[in-house]
Amino acid sequence: MINPFTDEYFMKKALQEAEAAFDKGEIPVGAIIVIDNKIIARSHNLTELLNDVTAHAEMQSITAAANFLGGKYLIGCTLYVTLEPCQMCAGALYWSQISKIVYGATDDNRGYVKMGTQLHPKTKVVNGILADEAADLMKRFFAEKRK
Amino acid sequence: MINPFTDEYFMKKALQEAEAAFDKGEIPVGAIIVIDNKIIARSHNLTELLNDVTAHAEMQSITAAANFLGGKYLIGCTLYVTLEPCQMCAGALYWSQISKIVYGATDDNRGYVKMGTQLHPKTKVVNGILADEAADLMKRFFAEKRK
Repeated sequence: MINPFTDEYFMKKALQEAEAAFDKGEIPVGAIIVIDNKIIARSHNLTELLNDVTAHAEMQSITAAANFLGGKYLIGCTLYVTLEPCQMCAGALYWSQISKIVYGATDDNRGYVKMGTQLHPKTKVVNGILADEAADLMKRFFAEKRK
Repeated sequence: MINPFTDEYFMKKALQEAEAAFDKGEIPVGAIIVIDNKIIARSHNLTELLNDVTAHAEMQSITAAANFLGGKYLIGCTLYVTLEPCQMCAGALYWSQISKIVYGATDDNRGYVKMGTQLHPKTKVVNGILADEAADLMKRFFAEKRK
């Protein structure tokens, strides 16, 4: 039997969130958190609407998933996010001890890899899933902003 | 005329917040944000009560100050926090472009300095203000936890 719950499957859901951000004029980044193939959090960047630099997609999903689980540690969970997390989000993910992070496009300027942010030693990372789709959405957003 | 608004003056307010965290059984870290000698945000660590790793004192104050100001950038603001910020909080402060950070005790294990987190180039940092008081509160907290 084919397993429908691939990383691509869940990243498509995160991309839908990124598109929702795009439609609101927010930098288009979306995230979801999954446990046992069940989506327990969905969010997209809301820094403009909320006037709040902490309102990145990942931060909202971390809070929502912990609320769902009734505990602050996200052991057994996977975060899917369309763009590589920043220092802040990677730092929050460190504290959460999340089991897996899957991201799409890399952020060569402000991504956690270049910035040297440490994740929890137990956290596995997969990247490049639907990266072109995520990057295209970002490019389209900034092209429209420049108009 | 003597200026009453010293770094010690404001750090005492942050310490009061840390004591409030202590009384709730939270790791005792407190923070305030000041602009033009006016306190516009006060907060203390609430990670246990809220079941949320993102509920550090600094994160709450960043959100509250931006809400007060009606804009997400904290230019002209100073954060007073009793303990050296972690990666997550330093990453949030980076995005906020806050003008000044004053912290008390250092965190040699998980502080942003050791972790190599980058602050915004325009952010000035002062440390060691009422550091002994902040560190004593932390030691007292963990000593009671071990009982």
